[in-house]
Amino acid sequence: MRQSQIFVNTLREAPAEAEVASHQLLLRAGFIRQLAAGIYTYMPLGRRVLRNIERILREELELAGAQEMLMPALQPAEIWKESGRYKSIGSELMRLTDRHQREFVLGPTHEEVITMLVNNEISSYRRLPLILYQIQTKFRDERRPRSGLLRGREFLMKDAYSFDASWDGLDQSYHAMYNAYHRIFERCGLTFRAVEADGGAIGGAGGTHEFMALTDIGEDTIAVCSHCGYAANLEKAISKEKHFESDRDRIAIIEKIHTPEVRTIEQLTQYLLIEPMEIMKTLIYLADGNPVAVLVRGDHDVNEIKIRNVLGVDLLMLADAESTVVVTGTTPGFVGPIGLSIPLFIDEAVIRMESGVVGANESEYHLKNVVPGRDFSIEHVGDFRNVKEDELCSRCEEGKLRFMKGIEIGHVFKLGMKYSEALGARYLDENGKERSFIMGCYGIGVSRIVSAIVEQHHDERGIIWPEVIAPYKVHLIVVSIKDETQRKVAEDLYNALRKREIDVLLDDRDERVGVKFKDSDLIGLPIRIVIGKDAINRNVEYMERSVNEKQVVSIDEALLRVNI
Amino acid sequence: MRQSQIFVNTLREAPAEAEVASHQLLLRAGFIRQLAAGIYTYMPLGRRVLRNIERILREELELAGAQEMLMPALQPAEIWKESGRYKSIGSELMRLTDRHQREFVLGPTHEEVITMLVNNEISSYRRLPLILYQIQTKFRDERRPRSGLLRGREFLMKDAYSFDASWDGLDQSYHAMYNAYHRIFERCGLTFRAVEADGGAIGGAGGTHEFMALTDIGEDTIAVCSHCGYAANLEKAISKEKHFESDRDRIAIIEKIHTPEVRTIEQLTQYLLIEPMEIMKTLIYLADGNPVAVLVRGDHDVNEIKIRNVLGVDLLMLADAESTVVVTGTTPGFVGPIGLSIPLFIDEAVIRMESGVVGANESEYHLKNVVPGRDFSIEHVGDFRNVKEDELCSRCEEGKLRFMKGIEIGHVFKLGMKYSEALGARYLDENGKERSFIMGCYGIGVSRIVSAIVEQHHDERGIIWPEVIAPYKVHLIVVSIKDETQRKVAEDLYNALRKREIDVLLDDRDERVGVKFKDSDLIGLPIRIVIGKDAINRNVEYMERSVNEKQVVSIDEALLRVNI
Repeated sequence: MRQSQIFVNTLREAPAEAEVASHQLLLRAGFIRQLAAGIYTYMPLGRRVLRNIERILREELELAGAQEMLMPALQPAEIWKESGRYKSIGSELMRLTDRHQREFVLGPTHEEVITMLVNNEISSYRRLPLILYQIQTKFRDERRPRSGLLRGREFLMKDAYSFDASWDGLDQSYHAMYNAYHRIFERCGLTFRAVEADGGAIGGAGGTHEFMALTDIGEDTIAVCSHCGYAANLEKAISKEKHFESDRDRIAIIEKIHTPEVRTIEQLTQYLLIEPMEIMKTLIYLADGNPVAVLVRGDHDVNEIKIRNVLGVDLLMLADAESTVVVTGTTPGFVGPIGLSIPLFIDEAVIRMESGVVGANESEYHLKNVVPGRDFSIEHVGDFRNVKEDELCSRCEEGKLRFMKGIEIGHVFKLGMKYSEALGARYLDENGKERSFIMGCYGIGVSRIVSAIVEQHHDERGIIWPEVIAPYKVHLIVVSIKDETQRKVAEDLYNALRKREIDVLLDDRDERVGVKFKDSDLIGLPIRIVIGKDAINRNVEYMERSVNEKQVVSIDEALLRVNI
Repeated sequence: MRQSQIFVNTLREAPAEAEVASHQLLLRAGFIRQLAAGIYTYMPLGRRVLRNIERILREELELAGAQEMLMPALQPAEIWKESGRYKSIGSELMRLTDRHQREFVLGPTHEEVITMLVNNEISSYRRLPLILYQIQTKFRDERRPRSGLLRGREFLMKDAYSFDASWDGLDQSYHAMYNAYHRIFERCGLTFRAVEADGGAIGGAGGTHEFMALTDIGEDTIAVCSHCGYAANLEKAISKEKHFESDRDRIAIIEKIHTPEVRTIEQLTQYLLIEPMEIMKTLIYLADGNPVAVLVRGDHDVNEIKIRNVLGVDLLMLADAESTVVVTGTTPGFVGPIGLSIPLFIDEAVIRMESGVVGANESEYHLKNVVPGRDFSIEHVGDFRNVKEDELCSRCEEGKLRFMKGIEIGHVFKLGMKYSEALGARYLDENGKERSFIMGCYGIGVSRIVSAIVEQHHDERGIIWPEVIAPYKVHLIVVSIKDETQRKVAEDLYNALRKREIDVLLDDRDERVGVKFKDSDLIGLPIRIVIGKDAINRNVEYMERSVNEKQVVSIDEALLRVNI
C-alpha cells in the first residue's frame, strides 16, 4: 500500500478525553476514530489489525475442535425473558422494538440463542460434544464508555459455547478452550495471566478463569502467589488465615464510650489510639432490597461479590443513610452487630479477633471489649473480604500474595446447566433418558486485545506492533520522493517485497522526512527501511521498531533480513 | 471435517413458509436456521460459504483500489436527520434509544457515517480519489421479510463509498467498481446482467446500475434488448415510441356517453367494444400529499418511479376514493383529464393517440373522441409508463425488448454531491477553493449472493455449489463405517486431501448409505468420492455433483482428479 493513497491521518495530539496510552496512540496513529461515546470506526490500519487477530483466533479455535457460525445481533426479547437475563442485565442491555412493536435486544452475548438452537438440532448424546464459536459485533449500553476500545458500547467479540453430555466432558471442552486461549494470547504477543474469577452476572456452576493482560491501567486487581502458580481476581482471591490462639475469657465486659463526631475507621483509631485491626466494621447492605449486616475487620474491605454469591442475589448495594436508620436505629458510623434483628454475615477474620470496638447502634457511641460469640451471636461466617497484599497464599501456604493490575481479554466459564435448564434444552442419553446439556462459554474481546497489545507494546514515540499483528510488516520510507534514484530503489524494493507476499507500506508522500519518521514511529510497523541519499550506492537504512537501532545495509541484505 | 462431528442437520422437508428453492434448500441442507422473521443464524456450512464469498470480495475490491474499514452499526440519529434519511427511509429504519435517551439507528447503509468521517480526515484534493469498503451486518425493518436470505431484517452487506474531486474521477471510480462487480459475480458462478436502474430512495445524480442474478423467482423485471447490450430495470427502462403520423383535424367533437357501473379498462372495452389502447387512463396521485393527475394509454401501466423522479418527491401514492372525489368531483373509474385544476402529467404514448375515451369527471359518464391539445391542454409530457415486452429498443432501434426476472445482488450509484452537500463535507481544490466531495456508493448483498447462487445452481435433489463457493470441495463417503478396509481407505484419503489443503468433509457416520447419499446430494459439494466394497481393490467411486456420473477409479486417480 502506498501511504499517499491510504486513508490514514496521524494526529499530533490525542483528544483530551483519551487518558490511557492505547486510546491515545490508536487515535493518533489513525487506527480508529470515534463516532459516538464508546462507538468506533476501524480505519484501514485498524481493520488490518483486527483481521490479523481474527486469523489467529480462527486457526487456534479450529485446532481446538470449535466450529465457526454466525448468529444474529437482533434477538427476540422473549428468550431473554425466559433465561432471566432480560431483567438481570438491566440497563446495559440495548433494547428496541420493531415496526410491529415486537421487542428485541441487541445481543451482548449469545447463550440464549445457541442453547435454543442446539436444543432444536441435537437430540442425542451421540452428537456431543460440540464447541461452536463466532466472531461477531456485540452491544452493551455501558453507563460510562471509556478508554477507547477497552470499554465500548459496540465491540467485536469472539464468543464460543460448548455442549457436553457429562461433567467430565465439560472439563475437557473447558480445558481445550483454556489451552487455545493461552496459544491465542501468546501469538498476539501479550503478557497475561489466567486467573481464577467469579462467575459474575452470567452465572453458572464450577470453575471460571479470566485471562488478564497485565498492565498498570488495568481495571482489575489480580492476586498472584509469589511461590506457587496461584492467581485470582481480587473479587475471588482467598488467603490463608492465621491460626487463632487466644483466650477470650480474660476480656473485660463491654464498655460504652462516647464518641461524638467519630464516624470513620480513621477517626476512631485517632480518637481511641488503636489500630484499624482492633475494630469490627459493620456495614448494612440491601440484598435485592432486603437489609443484611456484614462484619469485617477495620483494616479489611468488604468483597461484595463474595457476599452476593453466598446470598444468591442479583443486586447488592450499600444501604443509604435513611435505610440504615430504619434498620439499626442509628446513622452510618455508629452501626454495630449487637442487637440487630437482620441476618449478620461475619468475615472469618473477625471471628479470629479476641475482641474489638464496634458501633453501639446509638448515635455518638461505640462499644469496646466486644467479643464474637459472647456479645453477639455468630450466625453466618465466611470469607467476605478482599485479600490484602502480602497475605499467605491459601494454596501452597508458602508464598505471599502480590497484587497486579490487568485488563480482562478473555474469559472461560463452566456454565453447567444454568441455561439449558432455564430454557429446557435437553438431549437423550445412552439410556434414552432426557438430560440437560452441560455447557461452557468462552469469550474473547477482539477489540480489547487491540488495546491490550498497544498498552504492552509502545514507547513514548508510538506503537510497537508484534509482527503477526502489525497491519504491515515493513515500512518503506523514501527520504526525498523527488529524487529519481531514491524513488526507483523504493519502487523496486516495494515490488520485490510484494512479490514475496510481504505486507508493505510505502511512504511515497511529498513530505519532510522528519514528518515521515514521526508518523512511522507512531504507526509502529516492525521493520523500517529508509531509502535516502545512499540509495545511489544501493544502500538503505534498516531498523527494527522494537530495537530502534539504525544500520546501513545493501538492498539485498535488507530483503534478506525482512524474510527471516 | 468429520460429518459425525459437524453441527449440521439435514431436514427431509422445509417449513411451509419457505417458498423459493434457495430458502428451502439452505434450510434443508442445514446451512441456515431462522431465529425470528427475516433473522437467520449461519450454521457452520453456511458460515464457510459466506467466508468464501468474503474472500472473493476482498480480493477483487483490493485490486480495484478499495480499502477495507469497519464502521459501527450503531449510529447517532442526528446525522440521519441532517441527511434527511431519518424521515425519508421511514419505518424500515431500526431505531433505538440508549440509557441516556439519546436516539440511535441501526445502519442499513453508511453514507452519513463515511461522509462525516472523510470530511474530518481529508481536507485536500491531493488525498483524492478514495474508495473505502466494509463487509458488515446491516439492519432493515422489512415490513414483510421473506424468501430466506433474500429479504431479511439483518443481513451481511459489502458497502463501498468513493470520494472524488471531479466528475471524471467519479466516472473512473464507478467504472473500477463496476468492473470489480463483474469479476466478483463471475467468480461466484452467477449468471447476471448489469442493468440501468433508478436511484431509489438513496437518491443521487447520474448513472446507476443494478446487478441482477437472473432467475424466475426474481422480484425485479428487467427489459433486455434482443439485439444490442441494452438492459434496464423495468422501473427505468425506456422504449422507442413509433413516429406519430395522424390528422387529428378529422376527429369529431367530444361525445358524452352514459357508462353505468363501467369503471375498469376491461369493463370499458367490453361496453364500448374498443381496444384498451383506445382509452386514456387518468390516475390521481398524492405526491408528498399534493394531488396530481397522470394520464397513460389504457394498455399501459404507470411507472410511479418515473413520476416521482420528475416531481422530485419522496412519497407518491394513489389517491384514495375520498381524495379523488375532492379533487375531481367523481369517484375513481370516471376520472378524466378535462377540467381538472391540478397538474396533469401526460405520457408520451397518449400524445401520440389521435383521440381516446376518457372519464367525464362525472359519475357514470365517459367521453369519446377526446383529442390531446384540443380538448385538454398538454402540460407536462414525458415517459411515465412501464415499457412493454416486444417494444423497440430505444438505444439500437433495431432489437425488441425482452423481459427477464432478476434478484438484485449488487448496486452501483453515482451519488454526486447529495450527501456531501447535505452534510457540508468539503475539501480544498488546487486553487484553495472549497468544494463538495463527489461521491459514489456501491453495495453487494453478501447473504443475498448465497441465495442467488442456490437459485441458479440446484436440481431436484439439492444444491450444486460452484467450487470456489462450496463449504468443502470434496465429500468423502464411507459406505460402511464398520468395514475396516473402507474406514482405513477413507481415513488415508481424508488425510491425503487435507495435507494438500483441500477442504474435505468425511461422512464417517454410522448411517445407511442411502441416507448418506441423500444428504450429500442435498449439501451439494462439487466432488463426491464413495468408498465402498471395492475399497479392498483400492478403487473408489468418483462423481462430480454437477455432472452426476459415477466412475470407478483408483484411489490415486481420484486424488489426481481432485487436484485438477
